Amino acid sequence: MTVIKVALLGFGTVGEGLYESINSHQQQLQALLGAEVHIAGVLIQDSEKQRRLAEDVLVTTNFNDILNIPDLQVVFEAIVGEDPSYEYLSKAIERGCDIITANKVMFAKHGEELLRKAREYNVSIGYEATVAGGVPVIRTIAQLLQVNRVEKIQAILNGTSNFILTEMRKNELPFETVLKSAQDLGYAEADPSNDVEGFDAFYKLMILSNLLFGKQPDWHEVKVEGISEISNHQIQSAHQKNERYKHIAEIKKDGDQIIASVGPALTNEDHPLYNIEGVDNAIVIKASLAGTIAIQGPGAGSYPTASAMIEDFAHIFQNKKAAYALT
Amino acid sequence: MTVIKVALLGFGTVGEGLYESINSHQQQLQALLGAEVHIAGVLIQDSEKQRRLAEDVLVTTNFNDILNIPDLQVVFEAIVGEDPSYEYLSKAIERGCDIITANKVMFAKHGEELLRKAREYNVSIGYEATVAGGVPVIRTIAQLLQVNRVEKIQAILNGTSNFILTEMRKNELPFETVLKSAQDLGYAEADPSNDVEGFDAFYKLMILSNLLFGKQPDWHEVKVEGISEISNHQIQSAHQKNERYKHIAEIKKDGDQIIASVGPALTNEDHPLYNIEGVDNAIVIKASLAGTIAIQGPGAGSYPTASAMIEDFAHIFQNKKAAYALT
Repeated sequence: MTVIKVALLGFGTVGEGLYESINSHQQQLQALLGAEVHIAGVLIQDSEKQRRLAEDVLVTTNFNDILNIPDLQVVFEAIVGEDPSYEYLSKAIERGCDIITANKVMFAKHGEELLRKAREYNVSIGYEATVAGGVPVIRTIAQLLQVNRVEKIQAILNGTSNFILTEMRKNELPFETVLKSAQDLGYAEADPSNDVEGFDAFYKLMILSNLLFGKQPDWHEVKVEGISEISNHQIQSAHQKNERYKHIAEIKKDGDQIIASVGPALTNEDHPLYNIEGVDNAIVIKASLAGTIAIQGPGAGSYPTASAMIEDFAHIFQNKKAAYALT
Repeated sequence: MTVIKVALLGFGTVGEGLYESINSHQQQLQALLGAEVHIAGVLIQDSEKQRRLAEDVLVTTNFNDILNIPDLQVVFEAIVGEDPSYEYLSKAIERGCDIITANKVMFAKHGEELLRKAREYNVSIGYEATVAGGVPVIRTIAQLLQVNRVEKIQAILNGTSNFILTEMRKNELPFETVLKSAQDLGYAEADPSNDVEGFDAFYKLMILSNLLFGKQPDWHEVKVEGISEISNHQIQSAHQKNERYKHIAEIKKDGDQIIASVGPALTNEDHPLYNIEGVDNAIVIKASLAGTIAIQGPGAGSYPTASAMIEDFAHIFQNKKAAYALT
């Protein structure tokens, strides 16, 4: 059977989930692609750490070792932060590899550039995992709502913020207490500002902006607010009136102008995001023909993120297979 | 510019919505497909009725006139009931046309047969519109969750039943009263049994069964119940305990056996379908990697159904365009 050789960059929560998921879904992948997926290399940061990896996997701290793997076809990237992943992915594209990324900060900044480079080198980029984890929002918009004009998106894109707001309301607790328990549960980082100050949702919204409108608004003109200033008192007063604070990322177009915002909003029962609770993400898409479609699911986590990456991978290779069959 | 010639079978609510939507989204279609979509013929039932159709459209009560349109490429079918649409679509396939259908009764019974015939004649079938109207559940499963193993589906597939249950609870009214107002609003037919006795949801579930498992359970072994036996008293007693009746279609596999059911169920706040209200449909998909994904939106209506059909159409022609480009 044909073998597709892939490499993983990063072996944290997502990288490890990806490794396990590719192996546990080998049968599905073979049925779909008619090929076996072989994880040929893994780029790690800390060579001292113990990892459960098969013996034929090249484990290295040097990206050039990955680039030099013979017949490498795909690079899965699950590194946190902008650098050095942008540089790595550029090089992987130049080498002729398809790339699949979960890196939202990097892709919000360099996505368009990478997509341009990918066209130049005739390779594909999968980036479903950059927005809303396992919820297939990118490809729903790109593939399932192509004729529809998407008029507006309202979304809960940060599970940590949504979890904190939900717990504050239900348990009548202040922000700091709930943040601490979110950190203990692994839902929030030691430095939580990226999540609770709205930046994470903002990066995801900018990726959606490119997808929807082919461009982004000026970053400085987008109002970005987090949830750290909302008091338990405010939340409980709203609760008395059956209202809930939700952290909402919103984008629409007004003429040629893109109007985007990220911040807490009071919602009532009629709001489509009112019932989204806990760590879930949800995206409400207002489309010209379909009407208002909502997609909801786990916005983060090891397997959901791996899911998005593997589905992108299968899609890319199915297209290739169709192309080969015809030539 | 190249022209794609299409015909519509049926000019009721869906047929007319489709006609308008193709015309109002001509620009999107041209950008996507590089071709103009020309509605060349419309099959109608009653030649006496006034219709607002362009002058170059062949309007006929005779299906053979449609089949004889030169260079006809696609047949959109929006007829109600099994006959004669199965016969029409078989003939259209034999003539080499791609077909796109919204006919759930027909497709639940003859879908596999038509798909087989389509493979034989090298044409495509779009059937997104047969399940949940504008909610893109068929292609989410077929294209976005291919590697994932779908373990279970729970869904609200009949908007009429969901509307009636919601209104009974909110307004403390008996079934008959709410049914009457649903009929006045156009949400229920004069003979409502197909909706309120669970058959409509059952047909849709059988289409999902084929998609998920490549086969259907024996129809006589599936328990199908509607909502007409639920009293206002039952609904209000449940409401006191924060519970809601929802009409749920469910399917999963246990070993080689498909286990399916359709009927009312008591749900509490933690149930993923508890908050689906009014005429909306929702599908909750439990997938091996992505986790629990829910998709919600308008399950019927003129434009949402047209949306599903036009998106299928665009998808089929994009695949063709890619194939032509390579040969």
